[in-house]
Amino acid sequence: MASAVEIDAMRRALQLARRGPRGLNPQVGAVILSTDGDVLAEGYHRGAGTAHAEVDALSRLAPGAARGATAVVTLEPCNHTGRTGPCALALIEAGVARVVYALDDPTDAASGGADRLRAAGVDVESGAEAAAAEEVVHDWVHLQRTGRPRVTVKWAQSLDGRAAADDGSSQWITGPAARRDVHDRRAQADAIVAGTGTVRSDDPALTARAADGSLLDAQPMPVVIGESETAPDAAVRRHPRDPLFYATHDLHAVLADLAEQGVQRVFVEGGPTLASAFVREGLADELLVYVAPVLLGGSRLALGDLGVPTIDAARRLDVASLQTLGDDLLIVAVPRPSGHETAGTHENRGEA
Amino acid sequence: MASAVEIDAMRRALQLARRGPRGLNPQVGAVILSTDGDVLAEGYHRGAGTAHAEVDALSRLAPGAARGATAVVTLEPCNHTGRTGPCALALIEAGVARVVYALDDPTDAASGGADRLRAAGVDVESGAEAAAAEEVVHDWVHLQRTGRPRVTVKWAQSLDGRAAADDGSSQWITGPAARRDVHDRRAQADAIVAGTGTVRSDDPALTARAADGSLLDAQPMPVVIGESETAPDAAVRRHPRDPLFYATHDLHAVLADLAEQGVQRVFVEGGPTLASAFVREGLADELLVYVAPVLLGGSRLALGDLGVPTIDAARRLDVASLQTLGDDLLIVAVPRPSGHETAGTHENRGEA
Repeated sequence: MASAVEIDAMRRALQLARRGPRGLNPQVGAVILSTDGDVLAEGYHRGAGTAHAEVDALSRLAPGAARGATAVVTLEPCNHTGRTGPCALALIEAGVARVVYALDDPTDAASGGADRLRAAGVDVESGAEAAAAEEVVHDWVHLQRTGRPRVTVKWAQSLDGRAAADDGSSQWITGPAARRDVHDRRAQADAIVAGTGTVRSDDPALTARAADGSLLDAQPMPVVIGESETAPDAAVRRHPRDPLFYATHDLHAVLADLAEQGVQRVFVEGGPTLASAFVREGLADELLVYVAPVLLGGSRLALGDLGVPTIDAARRLDVASLQTLGDDLLIVAVPRPSGHETAGTHENRGEA
Repeated sequence: MASAVEIDAMRRALQLARRGPRGLNPQVGAVILSTDGDVLAEGYHRGAGTAHAEVDALSRLAPGAARGATAVVTLEPCNHTGRTGPCALALIEAGVARVVYALDDPTDAASGGADRLRAAGVDVESGAEAAAAEEVVHDWVHLQRTGRPRVTVKWAQSLDGRAAADDGSSQWITGPAARRDVHDRRAQADAIVAGTGTVRSDDPALTARAADGSLLDAQPMPVVIGESETAPDAAVRRHPRDPLFYATHDLHAVLADLAEQGVQRVFVEGGPTLASAFVREGLADELLVYVAPVLLGGSRLALGDLGVPTIDAARRLDVASLQTLGDDLLIVAVPRPSGHETAGTHENRGEA
C-alpha cells in the first residue's frame, strides 16, 4: 500500500508530468521522498532525447542524497536503453530503497522495470492513482497499442443529417455554446485535420479560440489532407503553427506519419468527405456529433458513403455521453467493436 | 372559488368526459351536486347527435330535482342550438343555482353560455382544473382553431439521418424500447397514416400493439395516402378498422376530410416521402424522431426534399423533450413559429 504521503507525492508527480510536452514519449513526472516523507527533488520528462522523469529528479540531488529514499513515479520505470539509459538501473544505482509507481509500462520494449528493481532488492509498489495516471498517458498508450494517433471525428448536422442547405450555406446551424465546446476540444488535440475541399470552400483558420475570438494557449497543428491545391492566401497558412499538407487519400499513411511526429490525438473536422472516409476506414475512435434542432432536407449530407450495403453492416455506436449545449445536442459516441451487439438489437423490428 | 367538493366533482367529471368518443364534438363530462354537496347525477357526451354532458346528467333526475343544485361541467355550457338545444338554457330551465366549469368554450358558435347563465341569475365559476380539462380537449381545440387534425410525424433514423441501408433493409435500426413507445403513442391517435409506397414495400399492419404482439384496446383508423394501388392481400386490409384510401397527394384535402370524420389527431409514420411532404407543407404539429446510435451512410434518407434552398429557410425546431429509450434516443420537437429565432442562432457561426 502506498502511504498518504506517497499518494500526495503521486498527485504532485502527475501535475509535473503534464508540464512535459505531448509527443513521441509519454508525459511522466517523479518525486523523490526522504525516509521522513520530505520532498527531496522533483522531475518530469521534457520530451524525446531528454532525461526521463526519475533521472531528471535524481539529477537535482547531490551524489548519495537519494540513498534509502522513495521514488514516486507516474509510470513504471523503464528497463530499456533508448536515447537514455534504463531508469530502473539509475534508481538502483542511486540507492533508492522504494519505488511507488502508478501505471505499468504498456510497451514491450520498456517494461520489466519493476521486476528489475525487485531483483535488486528495491521495495516496489504499483497502482497508486492509476486512473489519473492513465488519463495523462491515455492517447500515448493508444498510439503504442495501435501505431496511430487517437482520432476524434467531429461534425455538426441538422437533426436530419445535413451539414448545409442545398446552396451550401451552413452558418448558424449550431449555436454559440456548441461552437465554444468545439474550440475547447480542439485545444486538447495535437493536430486538427481538414480536407482540401473544406479548406477551399470554407477557408477555416483551424485554430482553437476563446469566446472573444482570441487564440487559446494550446494550438493543435493544422493538417490538410487531399489532392487539391490550397490557395496561397488561405487562412490556414496564417495559423500560428506551420500547417502540414498531405496530397494523398491514404489516411492510414497520414496517421502513421503523424504518429512518427509525436501526434497522439487528431481532431478531424474537415467536412463530410473526410469524416466519411475516417468512419468508412474504421479509423474514428471517437465521434462528436453536434445536432442542431433544425431540419434542412436536400443533398448536403453530413456523412456520405460509409460502405454499408445492408443493415447488418451498420456502424453501431456506443453513446458515451449526451448533453445539451444551448439549443443543440452533443452526442459523443464510440464505434461498437463488431460482434458486440446488445441483446435488443437482435430482436426483430417487425413490421410497422 | 370552487369548493373542495366542487373540485372533486370536476375530477370525476373529467373521468366521465374521457368515456365519450373522440370525434367531431369535444369530450365533456358533468356532475350535478345537491346543496349539501352530494352527487345527484353524472353524465357525459357520447358523440355528435347525442345529448350534451349537462343534459345527459339532468336527464337522469326527476323533474325539479336539480332545482337549487350546482352543475359541475368540464367545458363551458354551450349557447347554440345544433343537433341539440343550448345547454345553458337547459340548466336555467332545470333551476340550477350554480355552474362550475373548467374551460371557456373556444368556438365562436357555442360560446356565450356563461354570460347567458349569469344573465339568468345563475352563479357561474370558471377555471377549476382548467389544465386537466385542456388536456382532454386539446386536439379538439386544435381542430376548431385550424380546421384540421393535430398531426404528429414520426420517423426512425440512424444518427446520420438514414431510414435504411442502401439495399433498403432497415430492421433492427431502433431497439425494442423505442418500438414499444411508438405503439403506445399510436394508440393515442385517431388515425395512423402511411404512404402507398411504404405500404407496398413494408406491408405494415398499422395497428397499435402491446409488447407481446397483441392488439391494444385503442386502434387508430388506418389511412393510406398516394396514387399507387394497395394489394388485395396487404396487411392493412386486415386491420380491425376499415382502412381509408386517399388517391391524392393533396395533404390539406386529406386532413380536411379526416377532420370532417371526427379525426382529431393523426399519427404519420408512412415513410420518408410522406414525412417530408408533411414537414414541407408546414402540416407537422409535432415531430417524433427516434434516433438509433448507428451510422449507415448511403442514399436512403429519412427525410428528402423539404423545400429549404438556403440556411435562412431552415425549419427550426423547439425541442419539447429528449429521452433515451434503451440504446436509442427520442427527440420530441415542435416547429418553431417563423420569426421566433433565439438570440443564439443569430450569432455568426464564423469560420472554423
